[in-house]
Amino acid sequence: MRLNYHMPGTPPATLLPGRESGGSVPTITLIQYDSETIFESEFDSFGELMARFDPGKVNWINIDGLGDTDLLRALGEQFGLHPLALEDVLNTTQRPKVEHYANHFFIVSEMVYFDKEEHLTFEQVSMFLGSNYLITIQEEHGEDSFESVRQRLRVGRGFGRKRGPDYLAYALIDSIVDQFFPVLESLGDAIEDIEEELLERPSKSTLRRLYEVKRLLVQVRRASWPHREILNSLMRDDTGRVTAETTIFLRDCYDHITQIIDIIESYRDLSAGLMDVYLSSLGFRTNEIMRVLTVVSTIFIPLTFVAGVYGMNFNTSSPFNMPELDWKFGYLYFWLISALIAGTTLVIVKRKKWL
Amino acid sequence: MRLNYHMPGTPPATLLPGRESGGSVPTITLIQYDSETIFESEFDSFGELMARFDPGKVNWINIDGLGDTDLLRALGEQFGLHPLALEDVLNTTQRPKVEHYANHFFIVSEMVYFDKEEHLTFEQVSMFLGSNYLITIQEEHGEDSFESVRQRLRVGRGFGRKRGPDYLAYALIDSIVDQFFPVLESLGDAIEDIEEELLERPSKSTLRRLYEVKRLLVQVRRASWPHREILNSLMRDDTGRVTAETTIFLRDCYDHITQIIDIIESYRDLSAGLMDVYLSSLGFRTNEIMRVLTVVSTIFIPLTFVAGVYGMNFNTSSPFNMPELDWKFGYLYFWLISALIAGTTLVIVKRKKWL
Amino acid sequence: MRLNYHMPGTPPATLLPGRESGGSVPTITLIQYDSETIFESEFDSFGELMARFDPGKVNWINIDGLGDTDLLRALGEQFGLHPLALEDVLNTTQRPKVEHYANHFFIVSEMVYFDKEEHLTFEQVSMFLGSNYLITIQEEHGEDSFESVRQRLRVGRGFGRKRGPDYLAYALIDSIVDQFFPVLESLGDAIEDIEEELLERPSKSTLRRLYEVKRLLVQVRRASWPHREILNSLMRDDTGRVTAETTIFLRDCYDHITQIIDIIESYRDLSAGLMDVYLSSLGFRTNEIMRVLTVVSTIFIPLTFVAGVYGMNFNTSSPFNMPELDWKFGYLYFWLISALIAGTTLVIVKRKKWL
Amino acid sequence: MRLNYHMPGTPPATLLPGRESGGSVPTITLIQYDSETIFESEFDSFGELMARFDPGKVNWINIDGLGDTDLLRALGEQFGLHPLALEDVLNTTQRPKVEHYANHFFIVSEMVYFDKEEHLTFEQVSMFLGSNYLITIQEEHGEDSFESVRQRLRVGRGFGRKRGPDYLAYALIDSIVDQFFPVLESLGDAIEDIEEELLERPSKSTLRRLYEVKRLLVQVRRASWPHREILNSLMRDDTGRVTAETTIFLRDCYDHITQIIDIIESYRDLSAGLMDVYLSSLGFRTNEIMRVLTVVSTIFIPLTFVAGVYGMNFNTSSPFNMPELDWKFGYLYFWLISALIAGTTLVIVKRKKWL
Amino acid sequence: MRLNYHMPGTPPATLLPGRESGGSVPTITLIQYDSETIFESEFDSFGELMARFDPGKVNWINIDGLGDTDLLRALGEQFGLHPLALEDVLNTTQRPKVEHYANHFFIVSEMVYFDKEEHLTFEQVSMFLGSNYLITIQEEHGEDSFESVRQRLRVGRGFGRKRGPDYLAYALIDSIVDQFFPVLESLGDAIEDIEEELLERPSKSTLRRLYEVKRLLVQVRRASWPHREILNSLMRDDTGRVTAETTIFLRDCYDHITQIIDIIESYRDLSAGLMDVYLSSLGFRTNEIMRVLTVVSTIFIPLTFVAGVYGMNFNTSSPFNMPELDWKFGYLYFWLISALIAGTTLVIVKRKKWL
Repeated sequence: MRLNYHMPGTPPATLLPGRESGGSVPTITLIQYDSETIFESEFDSFGELMARFDPGKVNWINIDGLGDTDLLRALGEQFGLHPLALEDVLNTTQRPKVEHYANHFFIVSEMVYFDKEEHLTFEQVSMFLGSNYLITIQEEHGEDSFESVRQRLRVGRGFGRKRGPDYLAYALIDSIVDQFFPVLESLGDAIEDIEEELLERPSKSTLRRLYEVKRLLVQVRRASWPHREILNSLMRDDTGRVTAETTIFLRDCYDHITQIIDIIESYRDLSAGLMDVYLSSLGFRTNEIMRVLTVVSTIFIPLTFVAGVYGMNFNTSSPFNMPELDWKFGYLYFWLISALIAGTTLVIVKRKKWL
Repeated sequence: MRLNYHMPGTPPATLLPGRESGGSVPTITLIQYDSETIFESEFDSFGELMARFDPGKVNWINIDGLGDTDLLRALGEQFGLHPLALEDVLNTTQRPKVEHYANHFFIVSEMVYFDKEEHLTFEQVSMFLGSNYLITIQEEHGEDSFESVRQRLRVGRGFGRKRGPDYLAYALIDSIVDQFFPVLESLGDAIEDIEEELLERPSKSTLRRLYEVKRLLVQVRRASWPHREILNSLMRDDTGRVTAETTIFLRDCYDHITQIIDIIESYRDLSAGLMDVYLSSLGFRTNEIMRVLTVVSTIFIPLTFVAGVYGMNFNTSSPFNMPELDWKFGYLYFWLISALIAGTTLVIVKRKKWL
Repeated sequence: MRLNYHMPGTPPATLLPGRESGGSVPTITLIQYDSETIFESEFDSFGELMARFDPGKVNWINIDGLGDTDLLRALGEQFGLHPLALEDVLNTTQRPKVEHYANHFFIVSEMVYFDKEEHLTFEQVSMFLGSNYLITIQEEHGEDSFESVRQRLRVGRGFGRKRGPDYLAYALIDSIVDQFFPVLESLGDAIEDIEEELLERPSKSTLRRLYEVKRLLVQVRRASWPHREILNSLMRDDTGRVTAETTIFLRDCYDHITQIIDIIESYRDLSAGLMDVYLSSLGFRTNEIMRVLTVVSTIFIPLTFVAGVYGMNFNTSSPFNMPELDWKFGYLYFWLISALIAGTTLVIVKRKKWL
Repeated sequence: MRLNYHMPGTPPATLLPGRESGGSVPTITLIQYDSETIFESEFDSFGELMARFDPGKVNWINIDGLGDTDLLRALGEQFGLHPLALEDVLNTTQRPKVEHYANHFFIVSEMVYFDKEEHLTFEQVSMFLGSNYLITIQEEHGEDSFESVRQRLRVGRGFGRKRGPDYLAYALIDSIVDQFFPVLESLGDAIEDIEEELLERPSKSTLRRLYEVKRLLVQVRRASWPHREILNSLMRDDTGRVTAETTIFLRDCYDHITQIIDIIESYRDLSAGLMDVYLSSLGFRTNEIMRVLTVVSTIFIPLTFVAGVYGMNFNTSSPFNMPELDWKFGYLYFWLISALIAGTTLVIVKRKKWL
Repeated sequence: MRLNYHMPGTPPATLLPGRESGGSVPTITLIQYDSETIFESEFDSFGELMARFDPGKVNWINIDGLGDTDLLRALGEQFGLHPLALEDVLNTTQRPKVEHYANHFFIVSEMVYFDKEEHLTFEQVSMFLGSNYLITIQEEHGEDSFESVRQRLRVGRGFGRKRGPDYLAYALIDSIVDQFFPVLESLGDAIEDIEEELLERPSKSTLRRLYEVKRLLVQVRRASWPHREILNSLMRDDTGRVTAETTIFLRDCYDHITQIIDIIESYRDLSAGLMDVYLSSLGFRTNEIMRVLTVVSTIFIPLTFVAGVYGMNFNTSSPFNMPELDWKFGYLYFWLISALIAGTTLVIVKRKKWL
C-alpha cells in the first residue's frame, strides 16, 4: 500500500516532488473572466502567466502535474502561500481539509473516478482560494471532472461568470463530489450481483469480489467523509471570503456529500451482511453434502459388512460355521435383512428430516 | 441499485426530468380552505391554477408526477423557489431534509409503503411551505397517505381547517411518519417467522428471507433517521413560520419517529442475532450428522475389515494360513469378536456423549 | 410482534381504545392525603370522584384499564390535559418520555415484571403531574408495583405524606425502576446457567435459551434507556413543579437507572460472547469427532483393501496370479503388513496430535 | 449473578444490612492527625469515637463491615449525612459515583483485587468527605489497599500530613486506582498465554479461559469507567472542598484511570480477535483432517471396489463371466490398474494442494 | 504483557527507576542556540551543564536513560518541575498527554519505530517546555528520530534557529509523528501480502501473521490517538507559551496525526474483513473437499456392496441361492448395474452442482 509522505526527518515545509509522479512536467493554464469577457490560454512559464494576471477579474490558474517544485516556489512567493500548504500539495496522500490562512484558503480535495482500465483511482486536487484568484493543482494530466465547469464558463450559462472565485471553488468541489455518485452506483451494482451470486452459487471468486468491494468502500469512505468537514467549514466562514449566495450552493453540495456518506454506510452494512450470508450459505451447503454422505454411508456400510460376512471362507464342514450359507432360502433372507436395515435407516433419516 | 442523480458535470440547479419517471405528465390539484370554506379542484395548467389562487386562504397545491420541468420552472418563478430546491425535487434520491429559505421552507420527505405487489416502495415527497401556501410534489400518481388528511379537511373535523399551512405540513409529515408503523410491524412479523423457522428447520430460503429483512431494515433506517432532524429543525424554528401550537404537534410526531428509530435499532439487533443463530444452528446440525456418520463408521469399518480377512483365499494347506477357518467354532468366535468390537465402540461413544 | 399504534390516517389527538385491552372497564381510585390525614376510596364514576377532589391536599387518581375513552375525555377537560397526551395514553407502545405542558407534566413510563406464567411483561404507565394532583393510568388491573407506595402512605412512614405530588411521582417512578433489578437478576442467572451448559454440553435448547435472553435484553434495554432521559429532564426542571428536595431523590433514582443500563450493557457483552463460545464449542466438537472418524478410516480402509485383494479369485494355476496365497507364511505376512500399516498411521496421527 | 439491591417496594433511604455481609460486626478505627501529631486507635462504640473527635485536626474514621445499621444511623445524625447516601453504603452493588451534598461529598468507589484464592474480587468503598473529616466504609474486614496510606501518615513522609481530608481522599482513591494495574497485568499475561496456546494447540480449556478473561474484562471495565467521572467531578469542584493543590494530584490519578481504560479497551480488542483466531484455527484443523480423510478415502474406496469385483463368485464356466480371473497376468494387471487409479488420484490431489 | 507502573502503595510523586531500564546511566547533552550561534556538548554532571546554561538562548537539554533519579531530582529543583511529572517520566507506560503547569508544559509522547531486529518498539519521550529551555528525556540511548532536527539546527536551515523552544518542541513532536508513516506503510504492506495469501492459499501461518498485524494495530492505535489531543491542546494554548507562528505548524502536524488515525482505522477495517475472508475461505475449501469425498463415497460405497454380495459363498446347490452367479451374462449384468448406479449418482451430483 503506497503512502505518500516525506521521509521522517525532512524539515517541515520542504518542497520535494511527489514520490511517484515526480517527473511529469506541469501544464499551466489560465482562465480569466468576468461577467462580460473570458480569456483562456496555456502558458509555458509562470512569468508569462503572471504578466497576463488581471486583479480586476477572476483568475483561475490550473496546474496539472507536480514535477516542477520551482514553479510552486514561485507561486508561493507571488501569492504569499504558506510553505506548509505547498508541502501538502506535493504530499499527495493528504486527508481532504480546508485551512484558513490570512490572505487565502487552502483546500485539499480528493477526486475519485474509474480510470480507463476501470480501476478506482484517487487523485488529490489542491486549491488556493484568494480574493481574485483560484489556483487548482492536480496530480495528473488528462481529462478531469472540471471540463464541464470550463464549458459552462465559456458559454456563460448558469450564474458562474457573474460571481467570484468562491463560486468557482464551489463549482469545482461540486463536480468532485458529484463524481462519487457513479462510483457508488457501480459499487451498488457490484453488491447486487454478489448478493444474487451468493444466494445461488457461492464460489471462491464471489468471496474475492466481495472483499474487493469492501476494500473499495473503505477507501471511498476515507475520501468522502472529510469533504463534509470541508463544506461545513466553508459554509460557516465568517471572513467574507465566501459570499452568502455561494453558501446556499455549498449547503446543497453538503447535502449531496451527506447523502453519499449515508449510501456508503448502507453499503458497508449490506456488504457486512453479505459476508455473513456467504459463511451461512457455505455452512448450509456443507451440511447438505454431509447429510447425503451420512445417509449413503449409514445405509451401505452395515450392508457391506453383512455381505462381507457371507463372503467368509469358514470351513462349513463344522455345523457351527456359517450354516446360513447352506439354507435353501439363505440368499433371500440376506436380501430381506438388507432391505430391513436399509428401510429402518431411511425411516430414521426421514424422521430427522435429513432428506 | 438505482441512484437518481444528475450526471456529474451538469450545472447546479439544472432542471432535468427524473431518470425514470421522466415521462409521466403531472396532475395538478388545489385544495383551498379557511375555517369557513373549502374548495377542491384539479387543473390542467399552472396558469388556470394561479388564477384561482387566493392569498387570504390556505392554498395546498399538490403535483403528482415529475414529467413537466416547465411547470416546475413556472412554479419556481411564481413563488420565488430556489433553483437548487427545484433541482432536488427532481433528483428523487435526496436524503430527507429541511432547508430554510428566506420566503419559504423546503422540505424533502420520504414516503415508505408496500405497493400492490407487496414490494417495499420509497417515494420522495417534496414540500414548499410558504406563508399562505403549501406545495407538495410527489413522484407518482395513485393513492397516497395524504387521502386521510384531505378527508379531514373536507369534513372539517379536527383543528386542521382553522390553522395555517404549517399545520397542514405537519399533518402530511405525520401521515408519512405513521406509515412507518405498519411497515415495521410487517418486518417484525417476518423476524418472528424467521426466528421460529431458524430454530426448527433452517433452510436456504430462511437465509434468503433473513438477508432480505436486513436489507429492508437498512433502507427503512436510511429513510427514517433524517426525519428526526427534519422535525427537530421545524420545532426549533424561530422565524415564526411554524406557530407555537403546531410545535406541540410536531413534538408528538418527533416522539413517533424516535420510537420508530428505536424499533428499527431493536430489529437490527435481533436480525443480527438471528444470523448468529442460523450459523450456530447449522453448526449444530452438521455436528449431529457427523456424530451419526462417525458412530456408524467407527463400528462397522473395523468389522468389515475382520469379515474381509476371513474372506481371503490363502491356501489353507499350510497350517499357518488362516487356521481359524477350520476351527469348529470359528464362526461363533468371529461373531463374538465383532460383538466385542461393536460393544466397546458403543461404550466409548456413549461416554463421549455422542449419542 | 405487536406494535400498538393508530392506523395511519387517524387524525392526531384522536382517542381510540387500545387495540387489545380495548374492552376492559377501568377502575378509578383516589388517595387523598396531607401530612395529617389520608383518605382512600374507589369510585364508580368520574363525577363522584371530582366531587371528592380537594385542591388543598395531594390527590392521587389511579385508573386501571384503558377501555373507557369518555372517562379520559372528561379527565382531559377537567384538568386541561392536552389531547395528544391523552392519545399517547392509549397508544400503549409509546417510548417512555416526559413532556412539559404549561399546567402539568406528562410522563410515560414502562413497568417491567414477570407475570404469573413467568413471561416478561411490559406495561405502560402514564402520569399527569399537576400542582396538587397526580393521575396515573395503567393498562391492566391487578397488582402493581405501586402497592408498597400506597402502604407507606397509609402508615405515614417515610417523608412521603409531608410532600407534594412531585415526590409521589418520584416514589412511583422509583418503584418502577427498582422492578428492573429482579428482572435483571433473573436474566443474569439465565446467562450463568447458559454459560455453564455451553461449556459442558451445548445443545439446541441452549441456543434457543441464549437467543431468548438476547431478545429479552433488547426489550429491557429499549424500556430502560429512556428512563434516564425522563429522570434527567425532571431533575433539571426549573419551573418549580419539581422541588429541590425531590431532586435529590430523583438523582438517587437516576443513579439506579444508570446502574441498570450498565448491567444491561454488560449482559449484552456477555451474551454476545456466549454466542461466540457456542460456535467455537460446536466447531471444537465437530473437529474432535472428525478426528476420530479420520483415524478409524485411515487405519482400516487400507487394511480392508488388502484383505479384499487376498479375497480375489484369480486363477492360481498361473504362477503370476496371487502366488502369495500359496506361501507357507502368507497369512502371517498379511498380518505383519496390516500391523505395519496401522502402526505407521498411528504414529503419524500421534505426531499430528490428533489423538 | 448476585445483584445487591433493596427489594422493590422498600421505601427510599431505608437502612437494611447488605444481603450477604449482613452479619459482620463492624470495626471502627480513627486516625487523627495534623502536620505535627498523629493519633490512631480502634474504638468499640461510636460514642467513644466521637468523644475523641477533634474538629481542629483531620479525622479519618474507617469502618470495616456493614452489619450495624444503628452505627450508620448515628453516623448519619452526627455528621448530617443524607439518608439516601447511607442507603447506598449498604447496597453494595452501587456504580462508583460522587455526589455533592451541602456539607459533604459522598464518594462510592470500587476496590478490585485478587483474593487469597486468586479470585477477582470487587469491594465497595464508600467515603464521606467533610471539611475536617473523612469517613470510609468498607464491606469487609482484613487487609486493604489503604495500609500503605496509613504507613505514610504514620512516618509523616510525603506531603500527606500537612494537608486536609481532600488530599487524604485523593490518596485513598489513588491507592484504589493503582490496584487496577496488577489486575490488568495478570489479565494481560492470561491473554498472552491464551494467544500462544490458541495458535499452537487450541483445546476446550483454552476456550473456557478465553471466555473467563472476557468476562473479567467486562467486570473490570464496569468498575473502572465510572472512576473517570468521579475524578473529573472532583477536579472540577468549585466549592473549595477540594483545594487547587489536590487538583493537580487528582489530574495525575485521572491520567492513570484513563490509561487503565485504554488498556482495558485494547485487551477487549485483543480478546475479541482471539475468539476469531480460535474459530479460524479450529476451521483450519478441521479442514486439514478432512483433507487426509478425503485423500485416503478417494484412493482406497475405488480400489476396494475393484478388489471386491474380483472376489465375486460368478460361475466362470461361462466365458463371459470374469474371464480376467483366468488370464495369465490378471493379478499383475489388477495391480497395474490399482497403481494407475491411486497415482491419478494422488496427482489430482497434489494439484489441488490438498497434501 | 509488561505494564510499567509503581507498585500500588507507593506514595504519589515518588521517583523510582523504571522497572526494566533501571540500570542505564543517563547521557546528558545540551544544544544551545539563537539565530546567530549554536553550541553543542555532552556533559558528565548536571552541575556542569547548569554552569553553561544561558537564559538568553534556547537551551535544549536531552537526557538518554532513566537510571539516575538524583539527576531528575536536581533537574526538578532547578527548573521547578512538579514531582508528579517527574514520576511520570519514570513510569514509562504513560499515555501520551500534555499537562499545563504554571512555569512549564509537561508533554509525554510515544516514539514508535522498528528496531534493528525489526520488532515494533515503543519508547516514551518526556518533554518539559519552559520559556527558554526544552528538556527531553528518552528511555534509551542510541539513535533517535531527533537526529534530523539536530542537523537542521546545526546547518541553520529552515526557520528553526530563529524561534523559541516551542518551535523546537513542535519539530521534535513532528519528527515523532512522521515516524508513524513508515510503520503504517509496512503494516499496510503486510495486510496486502496477507490478503493475497488468504485468497490463494490460506495456511496456519497466514492466520498467525494476520493476528500479529491486528495486535500491532491495537498498539499503534493506542500510541497515536492521544497525540491528537496533545496537538489540539498545544494549538489552543492561550498562555502565550506557544506562539501563533508555531500554531500553524502544529496544525499541520495535527493534520498528519489525523491522517495517521484515519489510516489505522482503515487498516483495522481491512484486517477485520480479512479475518472474515479467512473463515469463509476455509469454509469454502472444506466444502470443496467434502464434495469430493461425498461424490466418491456415494458412487463407490453402493458398488462395493454389490460386489460384496456376489462374493458371498451361499451354497448355490439351492436354486434360490444367488442364481445370478450362474447366468451366462451375469458378470456383464453386474457391470451394467454398476454403471447405472454410478451414472445416476453422477447425474444427480451434476444437477446439484457439486462437481
